[in-house]
Amino acid sequence: MAHPQALTRAKAPRTDAKQHHDPGVRGFASDNYAGAHPEVLAALALANGGHQSAYGGDAYTDHLQQVVRRHFGARAEAFPVFNGTGANVVALQAVTDRWGAVIAADTAHIHVDECGAPERVGGLKLLTVPTGHGKLTPELIDREAYGWDDEHRAMPQVVSLTQSTELGTLYTPQEIRAVCEHAHERGMVVHLDGSRLANAAAALDVPMRAFTNVAGVDLLSLGGTKNGAVFGEAVIVLNPGAVRGMKHLRKLSMQLASKMRFVSVQLEALLAGDLWLRNARHANAMARRLYEGVRTVEGVRVLHPVEANAVFARLPHDVSERLQKRYRFYFWDEAAGDVRWMCSFDTTEEDVDGFVAALRAEMAG
Amino acid sequence: MAHPQALTRAKAPRTDAKQHHDPGVRGFASDNYAGAHPEVLAALALANGGHQSAYGGDAYTDHLQQVVRRHFGARAEAFPVFNGTGANVVALQAVTDRWGAVIAADTAHIHVDECGAPERVGGLKLLTVPTGHGKLTPELIDREAYGWDDEHRAMPQVVSLTQSTELGTLYTPQEIRAVCEHAHERGMVVHLDGSRLANAAAALDVPMRAFTNVAGVDLLSLGGTKNGAVFGEAVIVLNPGAVRGMKHLRKLSMQLASKMRFVSVQLEALLAGDLWLRNARHANAMARRLYEGVRTVEGVRVLHPVEANAVFARLPHDVSERLQKRYRFYFWDEAAGDVRWMCSFDTTEEDVDGFVAALRAEMAG
Amino acid sequence: MAHPQALTRAKAPRTDAKQHHDPGVRGFASDNYAGAHPEVLAALALANGGHQSAYGGDAYTDHLQQVVRRHFGARAEAFPVFNGTGANVVALQAVTDRWGAVIAADTAHIHVDECGAPERVGGLKLLTVPTGHGKLTPELIDREAYGWDDEHRAMPQVVSLTQSTELGTLYTPQEIRAVCEHAHERGMVVHLDGSRLANAAAALDVPMRAFTNVAGVDLLSLGGTKNGAVFGEAVIVLNPGAVRGMKHLRKLSMQLASKMRFVSVQLEALLAGDLWLRNARHANAMARRLYEGVRTVEGVRVLHPVEANAVFARLPHDVSERLQKRYRFYFWDEAAGDVRWMCSFDTTEEDVDGFVAALRAEMAG
Amino acid sequence: MAHPQALTRAKAPRTDAKQHHDPGVRGFASDNYAGAHPEVLAALALANGGHQSAYGGDAYTDHLQQVVRRHFGARAEAFPVFNGTGANVVALQAVTDRWGAVIAADTAHIHVDECGAPERVGGLKLLTVPTGHGKLTPELIDREAYGWDDEHRAMPQVVSLTQSTELGTLYTPQEIRAVCEHAHERGMVVHLDGSRLANAAAALDVPMRAFTNVAGVDLLSLGGTKNGAVFGEAVIVLNPGAVRGMKHLRKLSMQLASKMRFVSVQLEALLAGDLWLRNARHANAMARRLYEGVRTVEGVRVLHPVEANAVFARLPHDVSERLQKRYRFYFWDEAAGDVRWMCSFDTTEEDVDGFVAALRAEMAG
Repeated sequence: MAHPQALTRAKAPRTDAKQHHDPGVRGFASDNYAGAHPEVLAALALANGGHQSAYGGDAYTDHLQQVVRRHFGARAEAFPVFNGTGANVVALQAVTDRWGAVIAADTAHIHVDECGAPERVGGLKLLTVPTGHGKLTPELIDREAYGWDDEHRAMPQVVSLTQSTELGTLYTPQEIRAVCEHAHERGMVVHLDGSRLANAAAALDVPMRAFTNVAGVDLLSLGGTKNGAVFGEAVIVLNPGAVRGMKHLRKLSMQLASKMRFVSVQLEALLAGDLWLRNARHANAMARRLYEGVRTVEGVRVLHPVEANAVFARLPHDVSERLQKRYRFYFWDEAAGDVRWMCSFDTTEEDVDGFVAALRAEMAG
Repeated sequence: MAHPQALTRAKAPRTDAKQHHDPGVRGFASDNYAGAHPEVLAALALANGGHQSAYGGDAYTDHLQQVVRRHFGARAEAFPVFNGTGANVVALQAVTDRWGAVIAADTAHIHVDECGAPERVGGLKLLTVPTGHGKLTPELIDREAYGWDDEHRAMPQVVSLTQSTELGTLYTPQEIRAVCEHAHERGMVVHLDGSRLANAAAALDVPMRAFTNVAGVDLLSLGGTKNGAVFGEAVIVLNPGAVRGMKHLRKLSMQLASKMRFVSVQLEALLAGDLWLRNARHANAMARRLYEGVRTVEGVRVLHPVEANAVFARLPHDVSERLQKRYRFYFWDEAAGDVRWMCSFDTTEEDVDGFVAALRAEMAG
Repeated sequence: MAHPQALTRAKAPRTDAKQHHDPGVRGFASDNYAGAHPEVLAALALANGGHQSAYGGDAYTDHLQQVVRRHFGARAEAFPVFNGTGANVVALQAVTDRWGAVIAADTAHIHVDECGAPERVGGLKLLTVPTGHGKLTPELIDREAYGWDDEHRAMPQVVSLTQSTELGTLYTPQEIRAVCEHAHERGMVVHLDGSRLANAAAALDVPMRAFTNVAGVDLLSLGGTKNGAVFGEAVIVLNPGAVRGMKHLRKLSMQLASKMRFVSVQLEALLAGDLWLRNARHANAMARRLYEGVRTVEGVRVLHPVEANAVFARLPHDVSERLQKRYRFYFWDEAAGDVRWMCSFDTTEEDVDGFVAALRAEMAG
Repeated sequence: MAHPQALTRAKAPRTDAKQHHDPGVRGFASDNYAGAHPEVLAALALANGGHQSAYGGDAYTDHLQQVVRRHFGARAEAFPVFNGTGANVVALQAVTDRWGAVIAADTAHIHVDECGAPERVGGLKLLTVPTGHGKLTPELIDREAYGWDDEHRAMPQVVSLTQSTELGTLYTPQEIRAVCEHAHERGMVVHLDGSRLANAAAALDVPMRAFTNVAGVDLLSLGGTKNGAVFGEAVIVLNPGAVRGMKHLRKLSMQLASKMRFVSVQLEALLAGDLWLRNARHANAMARRLYEGVRTVEGVRVLHPVEANAVFARLPHDVSERLQKRYRFYFWDEAAGDVRWMCSFDTTEEDVDGFVAALRAEMAG
């Protein structure tokens, strides 16, 4: 039998799988409806072949540490995981005791979109606060930041921010710094859910460090999937003194990839050069273009500042339903008629312009 | 900006990632030290481009159901997940109540290699039994199969087998049928950890159904990673009446991939044709060749029947240490001098022969 | 009414324990600062001696079922447990799947006073709603009652009410019926945290069934401790079809008393005659007397309707601090100057009148 | 010794509860089939009346610390809880990380009699070892004491002993010291399940400290219930540096009694003088008397050394069944015909002699 790896370099290798979808169709449902960036796929092939230690003992995971340190400072350490919920729950466990609680916005992904994984896997209590546009402030944090010595109360040990937020808004570096100082003064650490961290950096036009390690964030969940990966995120520990048991927590939380080289090389493909930034800038630009298009449509109200790659709007329910037959997107609050339109790295100007025209026609109709 | 997907079909797309390893080096440490089969990588590219519903609403996950039903019968349903621990813990939760217990061999991966994930994530109690070569029998099961009405005891609700076992041995279809009948008579269901299911089918020279759904297994963890995938496994529900809440359990267990098309298409690449079988047969054949080579080496004792792709042996500790400088492999029981040699889909005859020669030389030395 | 403690000093068998407190001192901190009613202690002695099956197989737990059915209907079954948190968490697990969520007021004891036990022990997700005076309504429930088929969301499976509420207010039977109908129409069950159920019945002047089983409540936590027991509560299952695994859940939640006869006989002492009602009426009457006294004090604002045995008030912080040197009570919201005054079965008219006089003097001072 | 129950019939305050059992009937089923010692009931009355801070802020819990320090040294701290499972699971959580494992005998109560509470409530992995008579040794511990740096393995962080063991046997102080030294050298702490600690001290005729704090035990579960209490145990922290978060863990594990004075005063009644020792000596003496009686009965084989208050024996199954109609006791291994006979503080010589005579008659019959 010929060695199977001989096939690796061949052009268009055969596979028994078939193509079942039309690669020309895109919508505005989510940035994870997009596929992977071709450069990421190319990186997978590069890391293939031969044997590498499993579970993170490979050359790619090793090299990733250098890449990550260029972005997040010399103390940073990356722990690649499978997905965003996994990153969040591993990270939050690493900075809490069994009796710990997490202060978060009531729109936080950990609260509304993870089927209770923080509670069920991590035994975490979430203390949530209503916010204006998905952003915590020191004042909002104080609504739940008390009672550390009271055993009847889950102990607030960590504040979790999302950047960019679930509502497509941004914290400035100064706002994050203020939250971090406030939290640290009260003995709490700060976690940042960065499933769209790249979009935030692109929008703020600052390095990612400016609003993470430099601003005082202790650890973060770094998104790869929505930034163009096949799959893969990483917990980035910024303040090693704040965490305990990362490698054990990753394993017991079922987030330890055996062939980790394939997670790490994707993150390298994104972060070693500027692919992370190109992808994020493009997605943001498309959302900005979409916003500019829809804001002038009579009867459509944009609900939150459009600061990253999401546009939230309120429009007549029946208009949305008719539009959804041509473009995939989600209701955010169906009763209110609120919808979310997400742009991704592969959204095109034609996609946006076509959608705006369709919207305008439906509203006029 | 040119549409990024335009690049997909290009030859050798650029990436900022670099190759950090020597793809010509292989060892015998684990079948997950291997990379992915090129046909699997090709399938990833095929599924790329355009937008597809996230979280399993895509055409690939949909099509996977047909593929899986060809292998496991018309009632089978596949739930793709990230890794083997995830598959096991999701599956076991689906067939247990909060007070449930799992009867398993004391060598089972769920017991010795998952950092307590079944207990910590699933709240599962494991009732383990020592076995000869990693295989449960009705008699062994009975050591823990009692006390269903006694609230002091965790309730035995499921028997978990591994096929091929963690010790490289096999259950015959008849043996699995006997276990299933025994378990079912006592109101228990049967889970099968099939991270190396393909190796078992290849070795037994029967379809996978012969020792799964046809034999009475209720649900299984189907391995893709060790069979040549980049990553990805699936829980295959064989008896829908035995499970509850699969999709919710997968999500809360942090095993729900957003871009699931990329898990599903890998499984399609393996299962739609015979790649699964080619890969497994090759790995098994290499283990057999290795066994034939080492069994004649004086001072080396093979510990378990070599029935799949693993060889367990006892040899002098210092010999192992010297060999490990040239070939990666693990001690299984370091105090006893026991080692494990695994073969994978990309192991070559030259790898095996070179290793046997090196072993022979060291033993003679 | 003669003061119940008068009975305590009956013929004293020897013990090496010493009395370390002044039994003449009472305050307004909590109804669990009180001791036990002497009739309850007498019941303990009655149940003592000889051997009885442990873990609930005793004659007292058996008899308790009849007592409970007189109060809560022929389908009711009592599962005695140690404490209120235990009762709540056992009950909620019995009506949820691993992916279940509980809709509750954001003032609910399960959310603010149980150190995350529902999340950590039960793996439960709490979906909380702000309320006026601690009471849920169908409209408030609807803020979280959606998304049953969405695996990203913890599934709302149960609504948990508290009666009387943590803010000393009451649901009418009609209000509870409306909540139950609303919940049931949506496939949810209704749990009632009744750590002060007796106070509610006494205040509403209806049997307990009127706002529990008759109103559609599926199961409840029945308080004994605050009603005059040494310790002990019970989960009362009202709708057997709604629960699963009660006896196993009680054990695994560490709420199974070995000498259960001593829990059951206390509940019998309370419930077989009218001790439960006498104690509750007295506590309520004392709170009413306290309210009548303080409402006329200039500068003191009562915050919630005084419907059971609690008075919440806002007054100058320094006044509270001076009063606390003579009478124990708690700040409820220290920043706002809000305090809680609880009355119990052993609060005396003299206690109340003395406190009101002290408050009046401090406010005037 | 006058029968302690003679004191129970003192002047009876009224109660609506009725006596439902015959206080003259005793068996050999379990030491928790017994009621409470009258001196303990007297202590409850002593602690009653007036208001005391709830949740452990009372004078009795405060005083208990002094009592406990006389027994267990100046560093000891007592955390009263409800029951033995609660004590064990709170204690084990206090000395483990989320990734921790507990090494225990496979007969340990935490493994076989707690319905998986350690796993489900504490997220603990148990690593169990078969033993001769329920006793761990350094050698047996070493079967599971490895792999601390391996994230695939739950990390062994604590060894849990039971004294007296579940099989009625005893560790000598030297044996416990050897286990402690062995564990400490490997970075593990030692927990001791002392639900029958008093029986061990009585049998060894040494102070309890001799085989706990003096021998190196880090924390223990101290039994009150089986020693004559109504209910109530305590976690005794012996090495404060080894534990974290005790008060929070007790609360989140639902083991925090509101009227804690009633737990603490029972422990004071037992421990302040010699009631603990009197009760234990009596139970042990009865077991010894029972052993002396049955050992001479032809066909009855005693299975373990009778060192505390339990006798395990093998006899014909039908004989056991006939005896069980007159005396309650349990099969330990029904298939093998093994039974357990427990003696308690209120077992009488007449009980024992009558039982031995009945056994002899049945065996002869």
